[in-house]
Amino acid sequence: MIETALTRLHDPARKGFASDNYAGVHPEVLQALATVNGGHVGAYGADPYTEALQDVVRHHFGEQAECFPVFNGTGANVVALSAMTDRWDAVICTSTAHAHVDECGAPEKVAGVKMLPVPTPDGKLTPELVDREAHGFGFEHHAQPRVVTVTQSTELGTVYTPEQLRAVCEHAHGLGLTVHLDGARLANAAAALDLPLRALTTDVGVDVVSWGGTKNGLMGAEAVVVLTPEAVRQPRFVRKLSTQLASKMRFVSAQLLALHAGDLWLTAAGRANAMAQRLAAGLAAVPGVTVTQLPDANAVFALLPPGATARLQERWPFYVWNAATGEVRLMCSWDTTEQDVDGFVAALREQTVGAGH
Amino acid sequence: MIETALTRLHDPARKGFASDNYAGVHPEVLQALATVNGGHVGAYGADPYTEALQDVVRHHFGEQAECFPVFNGTGANVVALSAMTDRWDAVICTSTAHAHVDECGAPEKVAGVKMLPVPTPDGKLTPELVDREAHGFGFEHHAQPRVVTVTQSTELGTVYTPEQLRAVCEHAHGLGLTVHLDGARLANAAAALDLPLRALTTDVGVDVVSWGGTKNGLMGAEAVVVLTPEAVRQPRFVRKLSTQLASKMRFVSAQLLALHAGDLWLTAAGRANAMAQRLAAGLAAVPGVTVTQLPDANAVFALLPPGATARLQERWPFYVWNAATGEVRLMCSWDTTEQDVDGFVAALREQTVGAGH
Amino acid sequence: MIETALTRLHDPARKGFASDNYAGVHPEVLQALATVNGGHVGAYGADPYTEALQDVVRHHFGEQAECFPVFNGTGANVVALSAMTDRWDAVICTSTAHAHVDECGAPEKVAGVKMLPVPTPDGKLTPELVDREAHGFGFEHHAQPRVVTVTQSTELGTVYTPEQLRAVCEHAHGLGLTVHLDGARLANAAAALDLPLRALTTDVGVDVVSWGGTKNGLMGAEAVVVLTPEAVRQPRFVRKLSTQLASKMRFVSAQLLALHAGDLWLTAAGRANAMAQRLAAGLAAVPGVTVTQLPDANAVFALLPPGATARLQERWPFYVWNAATGEVRLMCSWDTTEQDVDGFVAALREQTVGAGH
Amino acid sequence: MIETALTRLHDPARKGFASDNYAGVHPEVLQALATVNGGHVGAYGADPYTEALQDVVRHHFGEQAECFPVFNGTGANVVALSAMTDRWDAVICTSTAHAHVDECGAPEKVAGVKMLPVPTPDGKLTPELVDREAHGFGFEHHAQPRVVTVTQSTELGTVYTPEQLRAVCEHAHGLGLTVHLDGARLANAAAALDLPLRALTTDVGVDVVSWGGTKNGLMGAEAVVVLTPEAVRQPRFVRKLSTQLASKMRFVSAQLLALHAGDLWLTAAGRANAMAQRLAAGLAAVPGVTVTQLPDANAVFALLPPGATARLQERWPFYVWNAATGEVRLMCSWDTTEQDVDGFVAALREQTVGAGH
Repeated sequence: MIETALTRLHDPARKGFASDNYAGVHPEVLQALATVNGGHVGAYGADPYTEALQDVVRHHFGEQAECFPVFNGTGANVVALSAMTDRWDAVICTSTAHAHVDECGAPEKVAGVKMLPVPTPDGKLTPELVDREAHGFGFEHHAQPRVVTVTQSTELGTVYTPEQLRAVCEHAHGLGLTVHLDGARLANAAAALDLPLRALTTDVGVDVVSWGGTKNGLMGAEAVVVLTPEAVRQPRFVRKLSTQLASKMRFVSAQLLALHAGDLWLTAAGRANAMAQRLAAGLAAVPGVTVTQLPDANAVFALLPPGATARLQERWPFYVWNAATGEVRLMCSWDTTEQDVDGFVAALREQTVGAGH
Repeated sequence: MIETALTRLHDPARKGFASDNYAGVHPEVLQALATVNGGHVGAYGADPYTEALQDVVRHHFGEQAECFPVFNGTGANVVALSAMTDRWDAVICTSTAHAHVDECGAPEKVAGVKMLPVPTPDGKLTPELVDREAHGFGFEHHAQPRVVTVTQSTELGTVYTPEQLRAVCEHAHGLGLTVHLDGARLANAAAALDLPLRALTTDVGVDVVSWGGTKNGLMGAEAVVVLTPEAVRQPRFVRKLSTQLASKMRFVSAQLLALHAGDLWLTAAGRANAMAQRLAAGLAAVPGVTVTQLPDANAVFALLPPGATARLQERWPFYVWNAATGEVRLMCSWDTTEQDVDGFVAALREQTVGAGH
Repeated sequence: MIETALTRLHDPARKGFASDNYAGVHPEVLQALATVNGGHVGAYGADPYTEALQDVVRHHFGEQAECFPVFNGTGANVVALSAMTDRWDAVICTSTAHAHVDECGAPEKVAGVKMLPVPTPDGKLTPELVDREAHGFGFEHHAQPRVVTVTQSTELGTVYTPEQLRAVCEHAHGLGLTVHLDGARLANAAAALDLPLRALTTDVGVDVVSWGGTKNGLMGAEAVVVLTPEAVRQPRFVRKLSTQLASKMRFVSAQLLALHAGDLWLTAAGRANAMAQRLAAGLAAVPGVTVTQLPDANAVFALLPPGATARLQERWPFYVWNAATGEVRLMCSWDTTEQDVDGFVAALREQTVGAGH
Repeated sequence: MIETALTRLHDPARKGFASDNYAGVHPEVLQALATVNGGHVGAYGADPYTEALQDVVRHHFGEQAECFPVFNGTGANVVALSAMTDRWDAVICTSTAHAHVDECGAPEKVAGVKMLPVPTPDGKLTPELVDREAHGFGFEHHAQPRVVTVTQSTELGTVYTPEQLRAVCEHAHGLGLTVHLDGARLANAAAALDLPLRALTTDVGVDVVSWGGTKNGLMGAEAVVVLTPEAVRQPRFVRKLSTQLASKMRFVSAQLLALHAGDLWLTAAGRANAMAQRLAAGLAAVPGVTVTQLPDANAVFALLPPGATARLQERWPFYVWNAATGEVRLMCSWDTTEQDVDGFVAALREQTVGAGH
């Protein structure tokens, strides 16, 4: 017989550095879900919370911004890129872009978007890198480059400066292209740079943002934020046909409101970043450990002593980033604490000392 | 300046009969979300709650059943139909099927599935109706019928008996087709028939179910339940590429667990059905009102006196179903109370009396 | 060892009534292919024959007409419907439309176009029939009706009058829809009505035509003819990405020129129609034969005496149209002769007499 | 008034070096079209010529080979890649692959195939280059590498040796992948290597070939040749739904028969190659000209003196390959003559001398 009551099946004290989506939900977000519950409101976004969210979006991104909440990051990217392109178009991206590498081909398979990946040293596009695929305009044999997509902070843990983003946007616009920003970790970038969201988006020329929330402490809520209305066509229909329209939308919007109406997004991202700094510093002080990349945001990359990785992963889950070199990626999240970091560093140090015997 | 605290922007006392997705979340479901929160667990379904859900699914649907949680009903239908078909296949449905009429063409546009709609009097397919489109097998000019999809309870508020479902399934299987059941309101049908879920699915030959949860009291959680493993190909990949894979899956699975681990799904659906019965009876007793279809489940269809619809809709939102005749659809949900029903009937009676002056 | 010379492997004296695409190529068309051969010309349509074709198209369809040659009828329909729709759109058609029934779902599978089929008694849409699916405008849950497609002459062998076409076009335009005409047998309709092509297309409001050539005596050439430039977006790109752009285009355009620069199209279609009339008259005079539908164009439908069908099909291939009733379809083509018709009728009469013994 | 007779609108004496699809049709092919004309035969491939073609295909590719004629090269690639993949799959290609660069995204847009391009120095894949994208197997977040596609001869004019192809095929098969060969210019490669077709395909492990004909002297005919039946699923349906099934198929098959039943394919390709050799030698002897790449097959790449390109292009059309360096590509075709080559070289020499004044 099945039990009625859902009981806790996991250890809430257990945390690791695998990914910011291993973390749970911020308590204020859970509270918001309760606040908006009860009674009936319109479905599919015809509710007061989705309406209120538009004010918050305008606060962060400017008066022209319009927000289309969706379920997840792949959904946000697919809806955004689909609404930004026609059937004959292509999207220039880095060869490490999440939309290219980690979404099972959803842009191609759901929306028929052709991806034009460009290798980069650090996960960032530049005008010169964009030019590698920005050709063939008007030539019917070539899928038409129409959008440049950048990720901020990048899949490699780096952060574009506003100037770098502006350079890409200006170059793209000069070619008649529009710019999409995959902001699954936009909050971490803003916190790292100590800049408001619009300084990394609207103000530098980004046209459409996949605005992340889940990795920033939500349960599951992202949004397509349109900054340039002319850059998209019929985002409402595209969201629906892409399976990304929530019926009880108030609970998606409530999450985004809880995070963004105040500064929860910033404190949550700032904590993750700060913990990454602490972790990098801690690791660097352990003999035999090399921090391969100083954290721009909330990701730390490092080479650990032989054997340490396997021994540590059981207690502190994290991923090997490069199987050839053994380089590991350690992600901090909104709920990472000083104790988590210090505990991990201490455990590593113990491994290292042990390994030295 | 934006306020930090999310405050209630709606009146929780206000309810109507517009749709079961205007309702909020059952308190036990909110509690479950808190229970599974805290600490880190694996993302994308590698967590103990998603694992526990498989046991619950086997309890309801039998040993072979496997469950793939998704975000919403359109997502469930697209993932199911996509995993059940190849590029050259087609799906036989009613001309009123949600997947045909109300999903902005998602099956065609996301998965390239051709829909073959058949007009029906009552929203139900029969072997004879299936035969209208079950032809052209092996003929390369014709998209190959591969799946029959039925909805239970139907978009017209009717409920298939187990025998009716069995007849469709046996006929479909005899033709080499598989059967998908859109169960956005499967709970209401089971409650109406006083039968376990498997009596309407596994036991009558259904191969794949879109298992509804949102209309049954959840925040936003559905699942593709595969009853016949051979009927699908690679549902995990199909779910991901269809944008329907949640990263913090534990919160999707927790909802489904809260509903289905015990009998919350049944009491919630039973209440909605009972309120529909009460509403139909109440309406029938109002002079000038015609109940056009006795409720099989939680939908009531009726003709109201002239003018009454517009006057009532403001306080009690509901939809006109047939603009030509003025017939209205009144949906009851898990949170509809006797007071809601009686209040609505009293208000209608008042309108009617008033109209008589 | 394989032989070098390609020898004739079939009997050129053998003809039947199976389909107008069982016939070969008109000698003038073969001559045209030789005429345009030799030397180098630009590929992909940058040649003088494709340019000359534009003049011919304007002659037939009016000054605004623009022509995009393609390989085959399915290609023409897919390119046309794809260029006329956006991702969220749908196409209203008859339930017997070739694009719905006989193209293996290419509109859905190549272009994601949702088809909204309407049952008809005679293969023709009317304003009333269009209205059955012309709803849900602006409603994000419903794929947006955007195009009405008609077939002239229809898949059932009937022919729309100009007034009937005008009524559909005016109604469609009034609803904000555009009109596509599948003209695989447009020549037969024009010949039957003794009207120029534009009287059935441009003059009655059709926006885009799939202009048939193959069934009218060509080897393999059709064209998308755009009559209303605003009705399509980027047909050149759509043609290319839909795999329908010929590299040695001069040989596609030459076929269309051979047919349409003079009146070969008309004499070829007129002969097919006349032979259908002769065949219908001949059949009607055979005891036990019922001509079920007088030929509007080049198709004859009839009920033959028991056993006659199978015995005749070997020498004179033709198809059973309705397996239940045994009704057969007999197509005449540009190369059907009086001897073919009379020989078939005589053979049938012999069968019938024999059957009477 | 439009003229009836189609007259010659081009100068058949005018040839150039722009592309092998600027050339016309070999006279033996035109003759074959006349040979197969007349009378009625089955449509869509149910004719004796398409049947005979299967024998020819088995002669060239081995007993397991099966042939599916299509209209053009993009069509062949789309049908092949679509039949070789499932919805969740990806194709590894060079970053210069025609299917990636020059087909307006048809693989993605028609079939949802994700392309994984790898930069190469010479247009050829190697096991090491394949490995750059051959990862993520079984990982639901990553579109699954399923096919490796190579082009022979390549888009850069180079030719794989059988050993090079074998190495790629063995490596691919070892990874569980299949191999597609885009053979738009396979004949040129075979002629260059003096090897039969099967030595470059079946014998080295290629699974499916896009078998070129148009650039080899046909009017417009290619074929998908399946060498490994298990490598594809339902190619007939895929061909139809991809708009690539010809109704009057006998005329497509006749072209392929005319080319391949004897050795016309080889003499035609051999001539093109020989003329490229002659051209390269001639160019190399002109002062100020650098042949940048010795021709493996029928393409010559060269740097011409300043100004020469523009002056020569009017009389002898050809393309600038690299706008930055001014490098030009000169293609020879089946109809290139010694006079053409010598005339071009003489004209260039004259330009060069003139430029020296």
